[in-house]
Amino acid sequence: MGTMIGNLLAPELKELIERRDFTRLREILCGFSAPDLAEIFIDLKPDDEAVLLRILPNDLAAEVFEYLPREDQEQTLRALGTEEVARILNEIAPDDRTALLEELPSAVTQKLLTLLTPEERAIATNLLGYPKESIGRRMTPDYVAVQQHWTVAEALEHLRQQPDKRDSIAQLYVVNEGGQLLDFIRLRDLVVSQPQMPLINLMEHSNLALRATDDQETAVAAFKKYDVTILPVVDRRSVLVGVVTVDDVLDVAEREATEDIQKLGGLEALDTPYLRTKIVEMLKKRAPWLSILFVSEMFTSTAMGYFEGVIQKAAVLAIFLPLILSSGGNSGSQATTLIIRAMALRDVLLRDWARVFRRELVSGFLLGCTLATLGIARIVLWQALHFKNYGPHYLLLALTIGGSLVGVVLWGSLVGAMLPIFLRLCRLDPATCSAPFVATMVDVTGIIIYFNVAFHILRGTIL
Amino acid sequence: MGTMIGNLLAPELKELIERRDFTRLREILCGFSAPDLAEIFIDLKPDDEAVLLRILPNDLAAEVFEYLPREDQEQTLRALGTEEVARILNEIAPDDRTALLEELPSAVTQKLLTLLTPEERAIATNLLGYPKESIGRRMTPDYVAVQQHWTVAEALEHLRQQPDKRDSIAQLYVVNEGGQLLDFIRLRDLVVSQPQMPLINLMEHSNLALRATDDQETAVAAFKKYDVTILPVVDRRSVLVGVVTVDDVLDVAEREATEDIQKLGGLEALDTPYLRTKIVEMLKKRAPWLSILFVSEMFTSTAMGYFEGVIQKAAVLAIFLPLILSSGGNSGSQATTLIIRAMALRDVLLRDWARVFRRELVSGFLLGCTLATLGIARIVLWQALHFKNYGPHYLLLALTIGGSLVGVVLWGSLVGAMLPIFLRLCRLDPATCSAPFVATMVDVTGIIIYFNVAFHILRGTIL
Repeated sequence: MGTMIGNLLAPELKELIERRDFTRLREILCGFSAPDLAEIFIDLKPDDEAVLLRILPNDLAAEVFEYLPREDQEQTLRALGTEEVARILNEIAPDDRTALLEELPSAVTQKLLTLLTPEERAIATNLLGYPKESIGRRMTPDYVAVQQHWTVAEALEHLRQQPDKRDSIAQLYVVNEGGQLLDFIRLRDLVVSQPQMPLINLMEHSNLALRATDDQETAVAAFKKYDVTILPVVDRRSVLVGVVTVDDVLDVAEREATEDIQKLGGLEALDTPYLRTKIVEMLKKRAPWLSILFVSEMFTSTAMGYFEGVIQKAAVLAIFLPLILSSGGNSGSQATTLIIRAMALRDVLLRDWARVFRRELVSGFLLGCTLATLGIARIVLWQALHFKNYGPHYLLLALTIGGSLVGVVLWGSLVGAMLPIFLRLCRLDPATCSAPFVATMVDVTGIIIYFNVAFHILRGTIL
Repeated sequence: MGTMIGNLLAPELKELIERRDFTRLREILCGFSAPDLAEIFIDLKPDDEAVLLRILPNDLAAEVFEYLPREDQEQTLRALGTEEVARILNEIAPDDRTALLEELPSAVTQKLLTLLTPEERAIATNLLGYPKESIGRRMTPDYVAVQQHWTVAEALEHLRQQPDKRDSIAQLYVVNEGGQLLDFIRLRDLVVSQPQMPLINLMEHSNLALRATDDQETAVAAFKKYDVTILPVVDRRSVLVGVVTVDDVLDVAEREATEDIQKLGGLEALDTPYLRTKIVEMLKKRAPWLSILFVSEMFTSTAMGYFEGVIQKAAVLAIFLPLILSSGGNSGSQATTLIIRAMALRDVLLRDWARVFRRELVSGFLLGCTLATLGIARIVLWQALHFKNYGPHYLLLALTIGGSLVGVVLWGSLVGAMLPIFLRLCRLDPATCSAPFVATMVDVTGIIIYFNVAFHILRGTIL
């Protein structure tokens, strides 16, 4: 939708900018919604973006600005004059402004704060006072508070006097004289009631609220549990300080999922989208983990060193080594992925460790037996069909491969499942235990399992 | 919060159920919100759940039922009498009812449909008529439609006559005589306007809408792009058929992230939470992929078979094999994770393939050089410190390891990044290309790279 419009329109806009035909430009642009305009703007140079923002009406300019990616916002701010920056910053929604200001270098943030009207500055500095990643940083003070002793008519009159609140005000919040949150009223109930009805009759008897200092993850969980689109936010003394809407939380939930996925893949979570991340930045997120994994994996060489004699005697054992190790790594990756996601969704809690252990004990054993069957079949079949000659002791070799597979897959499943739980127990993020990390751990122990099984089964024959 | 209440309360409730003290039970239960009650109910036996649901007032019973996990809903339905099932089914929100009915065996669904009033049955069968995973299945027909020639007073009168719409009606939808969606009006604007004002003055000039037959992923993307909490849904002829709220989409977004994560981990996505999935079900999701990976990995044995002679001559090469292969797998896992997530978030599109290729070419090469440096340092250091004697040609061996690492890591990054893009090009889900799958591919080719580099560098010395 938007992207298509952007692709079609961008050349025409560029031409009009060059011709300085601002009347026509304004006409065209005002025909689009802010999100569509934002998509069009992304394809333009920052200077052109600045020109277009300047000719838009105040409120539309601010709205488009809110929809721009962070990077474009920063570049556009630089391209705009002080007066226009002030115009836009004063107009954009407080929660989006916080999100922008918290990302900028603090000197820039300070400078931008001076451009705000005293009233907006108070709001901005207040929101910036909440800890990073807290609900306070995502909330907006655009809510309507009413007193419990009011009538419907008084509440409606109060509503008429409110400056335009852009966010949906489907709910009005009932507070006492001290501003403490008591309850809420649905706008709909207000609308269909008699004017002289006391508000107290419409109250929903719910004091559900978020704490401004709580982590944003709490908000995600609360929105999911209570299936609501907006929640009030209170401070330590239960005073209503703002509201959070679920669309802001959708971003938080998505960012968390991305972080978990990237950590699971064995790298630090990126701060920006893939294509917008500088290569140097990306290497900083990838190289350290890759190096840590590499250094850990060096223990495989140490372990293998002990078995160098065995390999010299029976090079055929080396041939099956990657197969055995990767099976342990894969089953570990499955288990760790399942448990990390289940813990993120609170399906698995610390106290469930024994249940997880039992499940993986059974699953790992059965999965190991499945692969062992395949592995044994392969050796016996290849020997029978003369694809390859594993020598007179090929059945013992098949047994070695099968036995090792059961051991390695079982071990991989257990390590993969228990490691995230162990990390949570140590109050660390379970997602730091990436799938590659589990694979590396399983590789080192897998070598020991494999050569020990081989030593016991093949001693006196090919060893 | 809720869980704590549940833990404290469950024993007391059980006792009251045994004593059949329904008056006291009803008193206690009515003091809680529906989501909290649902958490309390989960800890009870289905029969007890049924008893409690029976004593709750109609609307609260239905609301609590909506918040129960799918499994509990099914068990409770079985424990309830036909009359109570009808009572609850007729009362719960249409979108939640669809979600329940679509999961049940079709015979049960048919039977339940007969319990609905003709009006509710029409709604239910209509919603079930939309394809699985479509927006139609997640929408509710609880919206308020107004005509564009009405005045504010007429709209408010219409609102008063509506049966109780539980979902927030922060927006009213303007339709023409044929029911086609024209625009929307904010309830707030309606409330603060003069009664004789024509609605046409309040219209928002936005025809933003979802299509009922579109995939639910489209809805997630639209809510993210437009930062709204509710969107109207239209059919092929632009007729308004329902609304979707963002809280339903939050669940969809989460389920999609879970699916992607589980596929990335190398297994089929589970249909139910980990601890609630039967072991047999879980094995069905894990064993096939593990077996496919195992069979693919068998090519490593084939590839190694070609180099059996080399290994016999220089067993030291086998010692470093797991280190080299795992480095390729890890860099591939990083790249594939980054690209799959970026594609899911639409940060990377098909047309970006060349940019991705160039980025991974540079990153893969630099990452390979990093690991090569570590690998070479390790061999030289161990030799110098007499930890291990790699023989007179240890420098050539170090060079072999270093060269192979650059090749394998570069190759792993490229394969990991390009494979998801290739799958999307073939109109397959990029997430089917799991990290373990990339690792397997890189293992087979990694063996070939390693032994070829070794052959060229070490020929005439230890080979």
